[in-house]
Order: sequence, then structure tokens, then C-alpha cells
Amino acid sequence: MEKNLTLDPQNWDALRSLGHRMLDEMFDQFIHLKEKPAWQQMPPEVQKQLHEPLPIQPQGEEQVWREFVNNVLPYPNGSWHPRFWGWVQGTGVPFAMLADMLASGLNAHMAGFNHAPAVVELQVIAWLAELMGLPSGSSGLLCSGGTMAGVLGLAVARNAQAGFDVRENGLHSREQPRLMVYGSTETHGWAKKALELLGLGRRNYRAIPVDSQYQIQIPLLQESIAADRKLGHRPICIIGTAGTVNTAAIDNLNGLADVCEREKIWFHIDGAFGALARISDKLRSRVAGLERCDSISIDLHKWMYLPFEVACLLVRDAELHKAAFSSSASYLAEFDRGVSVGRMTFADRGIELTRGFKALKVWMCLKAYGVEKFARLIEQNVDQANYLADRVQCEPELELLAPVSLNIVCFRFAPSVMPEEKRNALNRELLMRLQESGVAIPSSTQIGDKFAIRTAIVNHRSRIEDFDLLIDTILKIGRELITEGFKA
Amino acid sequence: MEKNLTLDPQNWDALRSLGHRMLDEMFDQFIHLKEKPAWQQMPPEVQKQLHEPLPIQPQGEEQVWREFVNNVLPYPNGSWHPRFWGWVQGTGVPFAMLADMLASGLNAHMAGFNHAPAVVELQVIAWLAELMGLPSGSSGLLCSGGTMAGVLGLAVARNAQAGFDVRENGLHSREQPRLMVYGSTETHGWAKKALELLGLGRRNYRAIPVDSQYQIQIPLLQESIAADRKLGHRPICIIGTAGTVNTAAIDNLNGLADVCEREKIWFHIDGAFGALARISDKLRSRVAGLERCDSISIDLHKWMYLPFEVACLLVRDAELHKAAFSSSASYLAEFDRGVSVGRMTFADRGIELTRGFKALKVWMCLKAYGVEKFARLIEQNVDQANYLADRVQCEPELELLAPVSLNIVCFRFAPSVMPEEKRNALNRELLMRLQESGVAIPSSTQIGDKFAIRTAIVNHRSRIEDFDLLIDTILKIGRELITEGFKA
Ligand SMILES: Cc1ncc(COP(=O)(O)O)c(C=O)c1O
Ligand SMILES: Cc1ncc(COP(=O)(O)O)c(C=O)c1O
Repeated sequence: MEKNLTLDPQNWDALRSLGHRMLDEMFDQFIHLKEKPAWQQMPPEVQKQLHEPLPIQPQGEEQVWREFVNNVLPYPNGSWHPRFWGWVQGTGVPFAMLADMLASGLNAHMAGFNHAPAVVELQVIAWLAELMGLPSGSSGLLCSGGTMAGVLGLAVARNAQAGFDVRENGLHSREQPRLMVYGSTETHGWAKKALELLGLGRRNYRAIPVDSQYQIQIPLLQESIAADRKLGHRPICIIGTAGTVNTAAIDNLNGLADVCEREKIWFHIDGAFGALARISDKLRSRVAGLERCDSISIDLHKWMYLPFEVACLLVRDAELHKAAFSSSASYLAEFDRGVSVGRMTFADRGIELTRGFKALKVWMCLKAYGVEKFARLIEQNVDQANYLADRVQCEPELELLAPVSLNIVCFRFAPSVMPEEKRNALNRELLMRLQESGVAIPSSTQIGDKFAIRTAIVNHRSRIEDFDLLIDTILKIGRELITEGFKA
Repeated sequence: MEKNLTLDPQNWDALRSLGHRMLDEMFDQFIHLKEKPAWQQMPPEVQKQLHEPLPIQPQGEEQVWREFVNNVLPYPNGSWHPRFWGWVQGTGVPFAMLADMLASGLNAHMAGFNHAPAVVELQVIAWLAELMGLPSGSSGLLCSGGTMAGVLGLAVARNAQAGFDVRENGLHSREQPRLMVYGSTETHGWAKKALELLGLGRRNYRAIPVDSQYQIQIPLLQESIAADRKLGHRPICIIGTAGTVNTAAIDNLNGLADVCEREKIWFHIDGAFGALARISDKLRSRVAGLERCDSISIDLHKWMYLPFEVACLLVRDAELHKAAFSSSASYLAEFDRGVSVGRMTFADRGIELTRGFKALKVWMCLKAYGVEKFARLIEQNVDQANYLADRVQCEPELELLAPVSLNIVCFRFAPSVMPEEKRNALNRELLMRLQESGVAIPSSTQIGDKFAIRTAIVNHRSRIEDFDLLIDTILKIGRELITEGFKA
């Protein structure tokens, strides 16, 4: 056997120099993003080259880097681009990329442990709790995304509210009532997925209708709760949304908090992106009541623009948070000295044991740029959304499809020559051509029965002229389609 | 309002040069790791400095970097060090650190989408399935760790085996049998946590006793299944372990596969680290039967040494995998062109929607270094474990506490002058002093009623002389404790 094998490079200088070239390439990419397509279709040869047999023999770092540059780097989904507004995808941040490099090198194990990275994560959680208006002593955990934060939050709610020991007994027990969860028809799909995963069952999710502002109708919610109680079911959690995925609508959070208080139901807020509006003095009032939640999910890879993955669950009652997840095992003995002082702090707050040092990029970016800067950036995106909505409303061929509550604009190309029943197909085709042009990447949604072009602005690189280009290009493609005699 | 705010740097050259200095610092760290303590206690001033008020104003990138260098970089938990063998924590890989930087910069959204990163993840999953001996067409998903891979695997098993629609109805239903899961007393704690999270309940986990080799006792397992069936319960899943966390024992996987086949029960293998032994020709026979699983979890941040986080769930039946998680939502419409062709491939295979590009480091490292190299590294760790066990057995004051099946060595300092009832306390103190010395970081476990020093070798930086130093230091500290007249 060859002796002293390692994954450290044979030649440190060579790998170091490759690292420097990689870093330069990424910076060059950032600087020139604007000149490149927001997205482009992979050519078939590239797809073919990416399919290769299991690499038994080494190809070497340089060769792999060349393949990355040729076959991967030009074809990401595009979230880093100034004109990417699809779904809700943060832009990424160059300084955070460097933080991710440091975190990866340091390889700190974030189950807990007695080390600086744990102190950093606790600090970040405390800062986020303060920003959300939760009392000091609140608990929290960084996690992969808004979905995972929601799953964990709902698990805490389930275990705290069930009235029996769910961890021990599960949900089988024949004598127990059905546990009910409430949200609106506009609540993000994570909620149903969470009910499924947690064994609560999708049918125990009540999707309450919304009003014309896409806010949950609280009187209907109350009726639904009362009806469920009559049937012997147990309402355990109301999910309020601060920023719905379709239109960025914000539920009446104070109204929901009142219901939860009165009914003794857990109040979880899905604040995936919208919660961050709270850090702006100008926007704070729009999410009033948010600070009354029992738990909240916030996605820092959305409106804090940080690279994937990083989100945060915050829980007001630290004991209930821990009660949902903490466990012990002989290989995780407790000590009062050494590398594993105390318990596994973070493993006790969620499902994961091994966890990466996601906190580092949050810590470094919050410190380097300051909360004020993030507040200004969020306001800038809201201003851009308003600008875009204005432009839509000034163009007779365009139609705004939903009120703009924050940073999402839903609209369509709806020239009077095109009958209503063809407009969905027309806008579908228009969106495809727009994406294929690489000019801009909005995504879509359904507003009532209308197909909407949906622009979610969580992008620190967008400029006003980018939105002008969007409108101009949509009008151009739309008119071309009409001229071609578009048929659905 | 200030115009054109962004999180791109004001001065690209300055941030680029900072990035280069960061990279150089990390490389210098790697090169000099051996000369540094494996772990050191944070001084109180550092802890104090890490507690700071919410940063409203910017501190600047340079300042934050200086704080990182002073307060974080010297105090990680130590997994990157050549003499870290605590818990089961991979070492990290310099080239993978660079891959993580690229992934973070690119900010690809891995819910699905029509882009090169998705092709890369599919390729990595196919390679891993091939390495595990699963048929082509098997499904899989990269995820954060062994725990998450296990949770997802158990969710697939639950939904496939329940005999009713768990996603729709949950586990409430009064007419349904209890769903039972089986493992051994040595199964990692993720299993109980998963049962709790999934609403199955911890009491429906049967921990079957192990034999003297720490392997599950299959006759007892069969009795347990039969007894449960008699009671009207439904056995849904057997968890076999390839490499237990305490002693790296490998269950009789063929025996378990036979039981599962006969009883029509889902066979999940927790192969967190041990599954990777399969890639070595020399070690493959030890995990024989692994290829017969229905699903398997593999932790690439353990015995593939990659930086946190990255693990993989593989599922033989792609349809059942998807059936457990796939969903649809209006904002995730299906298209046959553009950036979101098809469905959300990866979101349909797990719980997360937004996901990062974890696949990149796997792809780059497998290609750069080749499977053969990983096989040799794994063999090297096994040889090191055998060497360490031999040294333990040659020292009259040391006692080997469990057979060495793979890469974990459990032993203790047990000089004849020290009576049995004091040995646990003695070894606890010894371990604390060893960790505090910074010489090496093993962790501990309980073997029967004996406190064991536990050395889990998933480290590509360790050298034979590191294990000699471990033994010498343990003997030295142990003898000092005796001389001091150690009292429990
Ligand atoms: C309102 C809302 N909640 C939750 C999520 C899910 O977050 P993630 O994709 O980070 O899991 C999203 C994603 O767009 C969202 O918009
Ligand atoms: C056998 C086994 N299974 C599962 C796990 C959990 O893996 P993770 O820490 O990546 O969640 C571990 C961790 O040590 C393990 O050793």
C-alpha cells in the first residue's frame, strides 16, 4: 500500500494558485453579469459531456476546473443575475461567497460543541430575534430554508399543543383528537408538505379563503376553528404569512395573534421573505403584529440576499423549542470541560446532528454591511416593485393582476385584440420566449384563473433600467406573437 | 434615498484582494495544522468580544476579516486536524473548500430547474447508486447529513408501507394498525428522532439486542416482528446499520435482507460512514448484502472526508421515492421549455424546496481524485484502526473494550492499581485532560457500563505517528493521575 495518502494536494503551491484563479474567475463573472444572459439553455453537447462514467481514476484538479468553466459556470439557473426575478431567490453576495469558503475550510461541526463557531451562531440567532422583536432569551436555529424552518416550527407547535406525548406515542393513539392546522389558500406549499411529513395529514390543514387583498379572512378562520372544536378536533396552530409567495400579501398579523391568544393556539408566522420588511423603519408597520408570534421562519437566502442555503427558525419559548427535539445518547455524553461542554446545543433544537457553519456568512455580512444597509436594500426593491407596477399600469397592453403589497408584481400581456380565453396560452408562450431570450427571468403563477407573469424582486443587483428593459421586451415579444397570429 | 445600492463591493479590487488574502490564510492554516493544537479553549476575552450588540452600522469587510482571524479561526471544534477522531466527523478537503466557494458564488437553486447544476447532481446520485450496487434508475437526493437522509428514507418507507394514504390522512386514523420500525440497540439516535418527527412515536421503535459483535440478533428480531403482527401492528421498516456509531459494527445485512424479503418489510440501511467501505475491493465483503436495501443513507462528510454538509439518500424504487414527497403548486407550474422545464426534480424527492449546490464538491472531488483514491484512504483508516488496537493490546495499562470491525477503536486506561469502580471516573478525567492538552481529540462512549475513550478514524490527515502520540499521551496523563492519587 502506498503510504501516507491524503486529500491534501501533492503540491500546495499548485492548488493555491488554482484557487486564486478560481476566485478571480468568480469576481470577473460578478463584474460582467449584466452583459450576460440571465439564463441560457445548455447545448446538447454540454449535457452529453456532463454524463460520464464513474471516475475510477483521477482526472486532476486542473482538468475538473476546466470542465467546470466550460460546462457548468455558463449554465446556472440565473439567480445571481440583475434581471432574475423568478420564484423567490436571493442574489448571493460576493463577501458571503468568501465567508462560505472560510466556513467550508474550517469545517466546524455545528451540532453544538465548545468553540467559537457556536458562539457566532448563538449571536446571529439573538440578533435575528431582536430584529423580529422577540424577547431576549428566545430560541432559534439556522437551517436550510424556509421549508425546513416551517417544518421545525410546526413540529414544535405539534408537540407543545397536542396535549399528549407525541414524541413517545406518535399520532396513532386511538383516543386522541385530530390535530388541526390553519392557514390561508395563499399559504406556501411547505405547510401541506410539513403536515404530511409530520404525520398530521394534509386533510387536517384548513385552507381558509382570502379577501381581495389576498389576506386570510379572519371571520372564516374563526368559524372553521369553532366547527372543528365542535367535531372534537384540536386546533393546534395558525400559520400567518408575512409575504405570500404569489403576491407578497401580508396577513393581518395582529388579528391572527388575537385569535391565537383567545383560542390558545400556537401562532407560527411564515415570514420567509416578508418578515425582513420589519428591519426597515418605513416598512415595519406593514408587518405589525409579527412580534407576537410563537415561532417564525425567515429565509436569509431570500431577502437578505445571502447565497443558498440559510434560513432561521425563531421560537419564543426556549423550553418548548428544546422539548420538541432534545435527546441524549451515550456517544454524546455531557461534560463540563473540553470540546463538548454542555449538551449539543443546536442538535437539541432541530432534527439535524451534523450541521455546517451557515452562521458565518450571516455574521460576516451583518457586521460588514450593517442592518441599515439591508433595510435600504429592501426598501429599494419595494420601490422597484412600485415602479414596475406603475409602468405596467401605464401600458395599455399590460394588465396588473394583483395589488402590490411589497416586492412582487403579477401582471400579463392582455391586448384588447386577444380574447380572454387565449390570454393564458399567450402569456405562457410569451414567458417562454422571454426566458429563452435570456433578457430577464420572471416566473409565473395563477391569479384566479389567469396566468400571471410574476416578478419577485429580492435582488440587490437590479436597477431601474432593468425593469424598463423587462417591460420593453415583454411588449416586443407580445406584439410579435400577435403579428405572428398566435394560436393557443 | 441613496441610489443604486448593492451588496456588491464599492471597490471590486479591494474585495478581490481581501479574498486572495483569505484564501492564502486558509492554505497556510492547512499546511501548519499539525503544529497546532487539535482544539483549544476560547479565552474569556474572545468569548466576550464575540458578544456584541446588533450591528446597525457597517464595520467593513476588512474589520470583519480581522475579527474572524482573531476570534474564530483559532477556535473551531477541530475536525480538520490530523489528530481529531471525535464522534464521526470528516476532515474537510482543500479542493472541496474551493468547490464550496464556487457553489456559493454561482448560487444555483437546486429545487430542480433546467441548468447544469441539476445535471451534476443527477450524475453524482447515479455514481453513488452505482458504488452502492443499486440498479441504474434508482433515485436519490443529496441532503444535509446522515440524520436527514435517514428521516427522508424512513418517510418513504412509512408512506410506501403504511397501507393507507399517510400524506392525506396522517397517522390519526382510528382504524389503522400501529406502524412498527426495527433496529438494534446500537442503532444511531437519528432513528428515534425520526420516528418522533414523523409522528410514528418512539415507542413504536423496537430496539433489538445485539450479540457480542454488536450486531443485531436476527432471531430476536424475527420474534419481535411475529409478536407485533400478533398484536395487530404493522411492521414497516427494518433499519440495518453498516458501521454503528459506537463500535463500527456491521449488521448481517444479507440476513436482514432475507427477513425483509420474507416479511415484505422495507429495508433501510444506515450506512452513514460504513457504507463507503463498499468502494474498497478489500473491504467490500464486510458490507455484503448492502446492495439489497430499499433505501440507504450515506454521509459524504464522514468517510468521504468532504466538508459539512453533504449526505445522500438513495432509494431503489424511484416511483415510491417521488410518491412520498412530490407536490404541485401554482407558482411551480410545469413547462416544457425555459428555465423550469419539467417538474422540480429534487424538491419532489425530499422536503426542501430551496437547496444549495452541495453536489458540486462531490462531483469535483470524485473526478479530481477518482474513486480508487477514496478506496485507498478508507483502507488506510482501517489499517490505522488496527494499528491503534494493536498498540492498545500491547500496553498492559490499556484495555480494548470492543472488537474493531472497521475504523472505530474503543479502549480505556485500566491499570491494575485502579479498582474497577473508579475506572469510569478516571477515564472521564483523562479524556478531559487529553482534550484540554490539545494533543488529540477522541470522544467517548459507554460500552456496557464502561466509560470508553472512542477513536473514530475518518481522517485523511492522520499518520501512524499521530496514533503513537495518542497512546503515549494517554499513558502519560493516566500515570500522572495515578501519581496524583486520583480520587473519583
Ligand atoms: C412565503 C414562502 N414561504 C416559504 C417558502 C419556502 O422557502 P424555501 O424555498 O427556502 O424552502 C417560500 C419560497 O419561495 C416562500 O415564498
Ligand atoms: C451510524 C451513524 N448514523 C447516523 C449518523 C448521523 O449523521 P449526521 O451527523 O450526518 O446527521 C451518524 C453520525 O455520527 C452515525 O455515526
